[in-house]
Amino acid sequence: MNRPEQAPSESWSIRQRIRRGEISGHTSGLAPGCVQGNVVILPAALATDFLRFCQANPKPCPLLAVSEPGEPALPALGHDIDMRSDVPRYRVFRHGELVEEPTDIGRLWREDLVSFILGCSFSFEWALLEDGLRLRHQDEGANVPMYRTGIQTAPAGLFHGPMVVSMRPYRPADAIRAIQITSRFPGVHGAPVHIGKPELIGIRDLAQPDWGDAVTVEADELPLFWACGVTPQAVIAEVKPDFCITHAPGAMLITDLSNSRLAVL
Amino acid sequence: MNRPEQAPSESWSIRQRIRRGEISGHTSGLAPGCVQGNVVILPAALATDFLRFCQANPKPCPLLAVSEPGEPALPALGHDIDMRSDVPRYRVFRHGELVEEPTDIGRLWREDLVSFILGCSFSFEWALLEDGLRLRHQDEGANVPMYRTGIQTAPAGLFHGPMVVSMRPYRPADAIRAIQITSRFPGVHGAPVHIGKPELIGIRDLAQPDWGDAVTVEADELPLFWACGVTPQAVIAEVKPDFCITHAPGAMLITDLSNSRLAVL
Repeated sequence: MNRPEQAPSESWSIRQRIRRGEISGHTSGLAPGCVQGNVVILPAALATDFLRFCQANPKPCPLLAVSEPGEPALPALGHDIDMRSDVPRYRVFRHGELVEEPTDIGRLWREDLVSFILGCSFSFEWALLEDGLRLRHQDEGANVPMYRTGIQTAPAGLFHGPMVVSMRPYRPADAIRAIQITSRFPGVHGAPVHIGKPELIGIRDLAQPDWGDAVTVEADELPLFWACGVTPQAVIAEVKPDFCITHAPGAMLITDLSNSRLAVL
Repeated sequence: MNRPEQAPSESWSIRQRIRRGEISGHTSGLAPGCVQGNVVILPAALATDFLRFCQANPKPCPLLAVSEPGEPALPALGHDIDMRSDVPRYRVFRHGELVEEPTDIGRLWREDLVSFILGCSFSFEWALLEDGLRLRHQDEGANVPMYRTGIQTAPAGLFHGPMVVSMRPYRPADAIRAIQITSRFPGVHGAPVHIGKPELIGIRDLAQPDWGDAVTVEADELPLFWACGVTPQAVIAEVKPDFCITHAPGAMLITDLSNSRLAVL
């Protein structure tokens, strides 16, 4: 991972406001150009299996950073990050049940907790927009449609389950361009896993997503399907660990990394 | 362009055999891994327009090298190349009419002739095969199917006309991989120009190509369309220049460049 920029940066300033409880909702549009991450916090006893699962499934689970056990800092991702307070809203699960959605988890912190930060589609969507492509769900004021597929993830220890994908429609020449652009960002889901013909990956009806909202797909467009960060959340929900903390949907960790630095080419 | 390898190379040895008239047919499979090129030889009076046409249409007309007027050597592409003798079979056109197909054009050579060498799909097909993808036309012992499209090239001077594309079918995940692989080779047609939905680019029936042979497209496959080197030939045929020489179909110029050196990434 690249070295984060020097503080005080806009991302750091926003994290400070989040830490003080001044921001407790969605992070979309905050600190434009900065990488935002999905958050999973697990007891160390599950960390090895989850790490192996991410390693075996890099498209749905692109790991940006993993903390030391019990260590709230993530210096690889930003200056002075404190995982106990710097996510706007958390979800706390016990035995697979959502028990609370606090804005700070200091009182729940344990010496065996390991934080996993996974890349998020905001980064490649930024790259698509920078290139002049549009996002249908954004144009329609909707959430991106997501679907459970018949593509199985590679199991590791306790973790297994189907891949979840997000869908964005493009006309063919733009679809080819979108594949090229997102191929440059393997750390944030990378290239699509499928194009056209949704039935081949077990999606019966594009109009009925399993998460998010349906969007228009025109007759001259192809649906493109990217591996989705909901995959690890769905897989963890299956395992029902004794204790687990994630970010609340849309309330991500804002890092100091710029999206453009995630481009490998 | 990269510096060619030191002679004597396999490509040089094969060119010597071609020069002696020992090889006068197809070059497919000769000097494996070496770049082969489409050949267009035009009087200098047309050279500027044709150069501008290639510059404006790099996907169908990827220029690998252009000679000095009257100069039969092409040092950028290989050791001791002589454009008067080193193509296995030529086609000579006068006023747009094919008048002969000699194996040597020494007696026709003029001080105003300029040689244009354009990249050819053999190079990116090599890259697809290296990656483990298959070529349907090869599996079916056929020529690749080619289609005249409704996509117009950018005109330049006398030169204008529709783009010709070649088609290769792949299942969706392989289609995405094929886009990634061929994107690395902009000097030999590069990424596809279209995927799926042939009717959107004016192709009515995949089973009736304008050149080459029809190939099977399975229900779980998408057709991928690449800009094709037949485009400049079709465009030149329209212009009907007083004098023009090309390679005979399939009988290409074998260069000393390795295909892998054309990869930009």
